[in-house]
Amino acid sequence: MRMSEGVEWALHCATVLALLPEGTTLPAARLAEFHELPPAYLAKVFQQLTRAGIVAATPGRHGGYRLAKPATEITVLDIVLAVDGDETAFRCTEIRRRGPAKVADRHYTPRCGIAATMWRAEEAWRAELAKTTVMDLVVTTAQQASPKALEKGAVWLAGQLRPGTAPQG
Amino acid sequence: MRMSEGVEWALHCATVLALLPEGTTLPAARLAEFHELPPAYLAKVFQQLTRAGIVAATPGRHGGYRLAKPATEITVLDIVLAVDGDETAFRCTEIRRRGPAKVADRHYTPRCGIAATMWRAEEAWRAELAKTTVMDLVVTTAQQASPKALEKGAVWLAGQLRPGTAPQG
Repeated sequence: MRMSEGVEWALHCATVLALLPEGTTLPAARLAEFHELPPAYLAKVFQQLTRAGIVAATPGRHGGYRLAKPATEITVLDIVLAVDGDETAFRCTEIRRRGPAKVADRHYTPRCGIAATMWRAEEAWRAELAKTTVMDLVVTTAQQASPKALEKGAVWLAGQLRPGTAPQG
Repeated sequence: MRMSEGVEWALHCATVLALLPEGTTLPAARLAEFHELPPAYLAKVFQQLTRAGIVAATPGRHGGYRLAKPATEITVLDIVLAVDGDETAFRCTEIRRRGPAKVADRHYTPRCGIAATMWRAEEAWRAELAKTTVMDLVVTTAQQASPKALEKGAVWLAGQLRPGTAPQG
């Protein structure tokens, strides 16, 4: 079981976007450069984040991305589901209803007990991911990063900003 | 993110093996028949379960499988890790250490805060899976199944049993 690597990219990029001054945006290509990621694949991840209402783009040659809502209102779970899809990792194929012990459909409970156990664990995983917001990631990152890395990052990013619509008014 | 379908098969098969009378075994091919599963793929799943010490085989033409320890001592997590591997679903590729803000390795915390958040959620998922044993699945299945399905299953299974070593003495 492996999560799409786009999840890692999206979490780091959202953390960077949360640091943008109001009224500015950043092109996805610059975010790709910042993390040394393949720009075409990262662009696809940004399409997914846009569809999910997590980021918004200012169109045009001078356009770029910003968070579509405050970083305190975007959870890690929102990003994981946007990029990796919201299907459960465990897929029940109802094998209990097959073979020599098969009986008519009306004799089965709607949900197999084994699947229910697996999905309960996925709910615990989702609940944990929903506890952390992008703003929490910003705080953790800022606390962890060395002053030198923060300064280098800030200087580089400041040179890449584009004017853009301010986050929701 | 999708879990191997072998996990579903293994959980159902372990639940059936937990019902075998002491001193009997069941060939994997019969378990495949019982659930209408591809025998060759199921045989691979049984190799994984054997390596993990969850099932044990009586060799030979009349051989078969049994649980290698009591059903109360095998958790759903044991089976998931045996079949799907114990790597985390989220893989951190350390993208924080790349690009224009990169600094020397000694300036980074050993673990990226974003990866730590993701792995904390996986721990919650594993903890939940570790709460349920194969015996719990047997109880749930027995409570859920219709008397007719239980009877058909028991009759069919009784005809397929092989003599085998009793579960751990």
